[in-house]
Amino acid sequence: MARHDRTQDELVTGILEGDRRALARAITLVEARTREGEELVRRVYPRTGRAATIGVTGPPGVGKSTLVGALTRHVRDLGKTVGVVSVDPSSPFTRGALLGDRIRLADHFLDPDVYIRSMGTRGHLGGLAEATLETLLLVDASGKDVIFLETVGTGQSEVEVIGSVDQVLLVLMPGSGDSVQALKAGIMEIPDVIAVNKLDHPAARTMAQEVRSIVALEPDRDRRPAILLTEAVRGDGVPELWVALEARRAALAERGELDERRRRNLEAEVEALAVSRLREHARRAMGEDAHVRDLVVGVGRREVDPLTAVAALVEAVVAGERS
Amino acid sequence: MARHDRTQDELVTGILEGDRRALARAITLVEARTREGEELVRRVYPRTGRAATIGVTGPPGVGKSTLVGALTRHVRDLGKTVGVVSVDPSSPFTRGALLGDRIRLADHFLDPDVYIRSMGTRGHLGGLAEATLETLLLVDASGKDVIFLETVGTGQSEVEVIGSVDQVLLVLMPGSGDSVQALKAGIMEIPDVIAVNKLDHPAARTMAQEVRSIVALEPDRDRRPAILLTEAVRGDGVPELWVALEARRAALAERGELDERRRRNLEAEVEALAVSRLREHARRAMGEDAHVRDLVVGVGRREVDPLTAVAALVEAVVAGERS
Repeated sequence: MARHDRTQDELVTGILEGDRRALARAITLVEARTREGEELVRRVYPRTGRAATIGVTGPPGVGKSTLVGALTRHVRDLGKTVGVVSVDPSSPFTRGALLGDRIRLADHFLDPDVYIRSMGTRGHLGGLAEATLETLLLVDASGKDVIFLETVGTGQSEVEVIGSVDQVLLVLMPGSGDSVQALKAGIMEIPDVIAVNKLDHPAARTMAQEVRSIVALEPDRDRRPAILLTEAVRGDGVPELWVALEARRAALAERGELDERRRRNLEAEVEALAVSRLREHARRAMGEDAHVRDLVVGVGRREVDPLTAVAALVEAVVAGERS
Repeated sequence: MARHDRTQDELVTGILEGDRRALARAITLVEARTREGEELVRRVYPRTGRAATIGVTGPPGVGKSTLVGALTRHVRDLGKTVGVVSVDPSSPFTRGALLGDRIRLADHFLDPDVYIRSMGTRGHLGGLAEATLETLLLVDASGKDVIFLETVGTGQSEVEVIGSVDQVLLVLMPGSGDSVQALKAGIMEIPDVIAVNKLDHPAARTMAQEVRSIVALEPDRDRRPAILLTEAVRGDGVPELWVALEARRAALAERGELDERRRRNLEAEVEALAVSRLREHARRAMGEDAHVRDLVVGVGRREVDPLTAVAALVEAVVAGERS
């Protein structure tokens, strides 16, 4: 394919001016894990930190994408620009299956002030987290006011990804019994705001009540999430949901918690990305280092214990880094 | 506490003879991440690999512990010895809240041929995976025929832990809508056997039917899990569940898949444990290495980009390993 490769300078200028083709090209470079993409992130980083980032999580099938679509339309009506980054393999954003969607997410694709990108989730998990963080930074630098990060509420790298946003919106629906149990058992972290979607369902109010009684156990009132009923397809409850998200954000900022959270998020990200790079090295050593391979085969034969192989692998990674 | 510290040799002999106090002591050493614990695992490792290991996973509240208790009783009646290792923070095994449990799990604590141990889950996640693997090896070396590993089906380290067993039993109940959606979306891996617990619930059969229709989409018939209805409190369906688990295991063994799976599990464990050690080093460097600390603070101020900090952190870990 004949493609005009713009210079780094042109790309940086394009991103900062909000040019969507420059942004798309930069994200492609980042997804391909190129040095060029890394360099772009480095250069635009001082211009990041302005966007309000909102993670939208929850089990598949609850209507996360539709809700993000409805929120996007509402936020656009308020005159703000929007970015949507999806790392949910079951999302219509990811599958590109937009035609059948009743709220016509496709409209947003044509709006120059909305940028939508889904991350390929079938590759390396570690690389995905890194590419997603870099994509968020690029979209932020391009001047979007609000960025929604859609993730499915399960799995390792999604957990890492959700740690990079200012606020978390958990979406549930009637029948989300497992998530309610996980909240109750303290296994799922309490989010900032909870939307119980599909409010027309006869069990929606009961579910909202159940969730309300669980979060009421949180002794710190400031940390108790707002719980709202929505019907994403029609947009019912969406303005109220946005008000709740803004109010929570303002409260976090006022208490100095937003800055603290961002600081902690950045630290956790630096750690996660370093670990993800070390993991890639470990994988390579397991495939290529003959000594490590022999030991691992020995483990399978119960001749070498796993801890000896682990120690050799750690050493191989270190040696690999050293050279 | 005045405790007679047995020698390594005595502990090794004790473990291999199935002495529960020796086993308990060894697991405590392993949980405390001591060199002595590691050495014990090394020494007994050649005697492992005999136990049939079964991971029991699923959302909280579905009755995993009660089902493990019922399976334990059934397997004991068949003359087999049993180990139970729990890494579920919401499990009654973990909380020690056994008195209220109607099937009286406590009985098993008094049976010399049943060994029950729950892992502390509030510490480092990486360390937990390592300690759990080592505990499984120790219980295996102690001669238990069947080992149940109870985990909750969410979160990072549980994912690593469940990768170390021969077979996975997923427990659901009516209302487990999120898990069903996750199976449908291909986000949750298809297990070997599925138990729909609480069969007295009016929706149990509907849920089993729904799950059946999802797994029917798997083109390889051999990989379609058996789906059984159980009522763990009364033990209904438990003998049938055990038959299904044994049949699946026999089929795996016949096709050579059991050995292949064990080999892959061991490889994945070696990698996961190496990564977990590298993560501990990274955490230490973030706290102690002045250069890394400065960079991370700079990231928070948008003065240093995260990728520069990541590179420095990786380097610090490597330097730390080297010295």
